[in-house]
Amino acid sequence: MTARRGEGKRADMLVHEAEPFNAEPRPGTLASSPVTPLDAFYVRGHGAVPELDAATWRLRVGGLTSRPLVLSLTELRDGRFAECEEVATLQCAGNRRADLIAVREIPGEAPWGPGATGTTRWRGVRLADVLAAAGVKPAARHVAFVGADRSQEAAPPQQFGASVPLAKAQAPEVLLAYEMDGQALRPVHGAPVRALVPGYIGARSVKWLERIELRSEPWDGYFQNTAYRLLAADEEPGPGIGIALGEVGLNTAILVPLDDGRVPAGPIDVRGYAFAGGGRGIARVEVSGDGGATWVRADLSDDQGPWAWRLWDARIRLAAGTHEVVARAWDGAANSQPERPESVWNPKGYANWAWARIHVHAGA
Amino acid sequence: MTARRGEGKRADMLVHEAEPFNAEPRPGTLASSPVTPLDAFYVRGHGAVPELDAATWRLRVGGLTSRPLVLSLTELRDGRFAECEEVATLQCAGNRRADLIAVREIPGEAPWGPGATGTTRWRGVRLADVLAAAGVKPAARHVAFVGADRSQEAAPPQQFGASVPLAKAQAPEVLLAYEMDGQALRPVHGAPVRALVPGYIGARSVKWLERIELRSEPWDGYFQNTAYRLLAADEEPGPGIGIALGEVGLNTAILVPLDDGRVPAGPIDVRGYAFAGGGRGIARVEVSGDGGATWVRADLSDDQGPWAWRLWDARIRLAAGTHEVVARAWDGAANSQPERPESVWNPKGYANWAWARIHVHAGA
Repeated sequence: MTARRGEGKRADMLVHEAEPFNAEPRPGTLASSPVTPLDAFYVRGHGAVPELDAATWRLRVGGLTSRPLVLSLTELRDGRFAECEEVATLQCAGNRRADLIAVREIPGEAPWGPGATGTTRWRGVRLADVLAAAGVKPAARHVAFVGADRSQEAAPPQQFGASVPLAKAQAPEVLLAYEMDGQALRPVHGAPVRALVPGYIGARSVKWLERIELRSEPWDGYFQNTAYRLLAADEEPGPGIGIALGEVGLNTAILVPLDDGRVPAGPIDVRGYAFAGGGRGIARVEVSGDGGATWVRADLSDDQGPWAWRLWDARIRLAAGTHEVVARAWDGAANSQPERPESVWNPKGYANWAWARIHVHAGA
Repeated sequence: MTARRGEGKRADMLVHEAEPFNAEPRPGTLASSPVTPLDAFYVRGHGAVPELDAATWRLRVGGLTSRPLVLSLTELRDGRFAECEEVATLQCAGNRRADLIAVREIPGEAPWGPGATGTTRWRGVRLADVLAAAGVKPAARHVAFVGADRSQEAAPPQQFGASVPLAKAQAPEVLLAYEMDGQALRPVHGAPVRALVPGYIGARSVKWLERIELRSEPWDGYFQNTAYRLLAADEEPGPGIGIALGEVGLNTAILVPLDDGRVPAGPIDVRGYAFAGGGRGIARVEVSGDGGATWVRADLSDDQGPWAWRLWDARIRLAAGTHEVVARAWDGAANSQPERPESVWNPKGYANWAWARIHVHAGA
C-alpha cells in the first residue's frame, strides 16, 4: 500500500497524514492556475485507497428504483448515457480549519490550510441519466453514494457513504466522473468512478463508488449523520446533532503572500480564490491592507461557470511594518461573509467561511 | 387619493412617507404572530396607488412567447390555472436600513426599521402555468413584471417594473396572487393581482400587475438596472452599477425588547424573526446578552415551509446595567451572517443582513 501514498503528487505537498493519505498543495501553487495542476490537487481520504480493477468493477443502483441496475465501466461509458464535462471546484468542509484552531483547539482534526480545495474539468455521465434509467420511485427523496473504502475513523468502522437530496442528484451538474483534466481518474481520487456533486462539500463526492441507493431519508451512516455536521460551540458530536453540511458557503482565501510572510514596502500583489457553492457566483472580491478599514476591489479571473471558483488579484500599498491583510467576497445574490473565525468556530472545525485574514511584514 | 393613505392599516404604524404611503408595523406587533396581521403588514410604494377596476383589468403576457395572452381576472381564476396557496415572507431590500444609517448617512432613503417584512398566506395561480399557456420561446431567460403605478422616484418617471430569471419564474412557489390571508388583495398591496416571488426582495413582487414580458435579458428599467442594486461603498448609482439584488440573504431581527428599551434585571425574553430567502430554511438562532461573547439557542416557531420566516424566542439573564443584545441565525446549509452593519454598509442602504444588535437597560 505504501506505493499509493501521495502517488502522482508533487513532493512539496503539505501532508497532514501519510496513511490514509491527506495532503494539500502550497498556497502559491494553488494560485498559479484557475485549473489546479493535477499533481497538486488536494487529497482527503478516510481509509486506505481501495485497489479496484476497472475490468471487474460494477456499480449497483438500487433502493427506491423500479429497475435496479448493475453497470460495468464499459456499460457506463458505451454511449447509453451521454458523456459530458463540467468545470467544478471541489472543497473539503475542513478547508481553512487551521484558522479555527488558532482560535481554540480542535482535537483529532487535521489543520487544513486554504489548500483543501481545487478546480478541474471533470468528465463523466450525468447521474440524472443513470437515475432515469433505474426509474426513480415517487417515495425517493435522497440519493446515497457508497464507496469501496472502509474507514477506521468511523464508529463503528464502515464504508464511506453520503447522500444528497434527490433534486440535487438530478441536477445536470452532478456527474459520475471518471476523468479529471483529461486524464483517467487516479486511485487517490476515486478510480475508476466517483460521484461529483459540484457546489457541495467534498465529502458528498464519494470516491471509489460501488453503490447508489435511492432513499426516503438521508444516509444514516457515520459520515453523514455524525461527522460533517456543524455543531454549535457547546454541542458534542452525536447522531443527528448539528446541521448537516451540504452546499459550500461563500468563502475566500488569500494565497499570496503567505501568512506571516515578508514583502517589500510599497505596492504588493495579493492573490487568492473565492467560491460560492450554491451556484450564485462571485460578484465582487475586496481586499484591505488595514484590517478592513478601507478596501480595494480585486480583479477576477475568467468565469468558468457557476460551479467553479474565481481566482482574484489586487494591488495594495503597504508602508513598512506589520499589517493585517483581509479579503472578503460577495456572491451574485449580494451575500457577504462573517468577519471573524471566532464567530464561526465549531467543535469539529468545519465551514470556516469567514473573511480571509493574514499578517504580512512589509520591509523598509 | 388621500382616502388611500394607510387604508386598512392600524393607527400605530410607523409611517415613513404619507404619499406614496410607506409604513411598517411596530416591532412588538410583528412579533405577535407567525402570520402577520393584515392591518400591520408593511407597505412599500413608489408612486400613487393606481385605481384599478377588477372588471376591466387585463393581464397581458407577451415578449418571447409563442401565444401572447390577454387575461381578465375571471379568466385567470376560472380554473384553467389551478389555484394554490403559499405561506411566504415578503421583505423589502431596505429592511433594517436604520442600522446602516446609524453607521453613516444615506441621503434620500427611508430609515426602515425591522418591520419592512411580513408573512402571510397568499392565494393565486402559479406563474409557471400561465407561462406554459403563453408558450415560452427558447430564447427567453428572464420574466419581467410591469405594474400600473407610475413612479416619480425613477429617472425618468416610469411604471414600476422588474424581472426575475426564468428558472425562478417557473418555480412552483411563484404566484400571480389575488388574496392575502384569505382576503382579497387590498389596493395598497397591489389589487387586483400582483406577482409574488417568494424568497426574493419585495421589489420583484410587482404590484398592480398589468404586463408580463418574457425577455432574453433582465428588465432594463430604473428599478432593476439602477435602483435595488448593491453598490460598493465607493460606487455611485448608475445603470448596471453594482450587484442586482434578487434572493434575500439570511437575516434576523430582534423585535422584543425594543432597542434602547428598559427591562427588569434578571431573566428576560428576547424575541424576533429569522429568514433566509434561498429556501434553505433556518436551522438555528442564537442570542447573546454580552455582545457576542456567549450565546444561548433560541426556540423557533413552527416551520411554515421554505418560503416563510421563523419567529424565535430566547431567555437570557441580564444584570443591572446597559447591555448589547445580539442575535444571529444559521441556515440549513450552515451559513451564518456578517457581524456588523459597518461591514455591509452601502450607499443605497440595501441588504442589511448583519447580526441584529440592540442595547437594553436592565433596571436594578
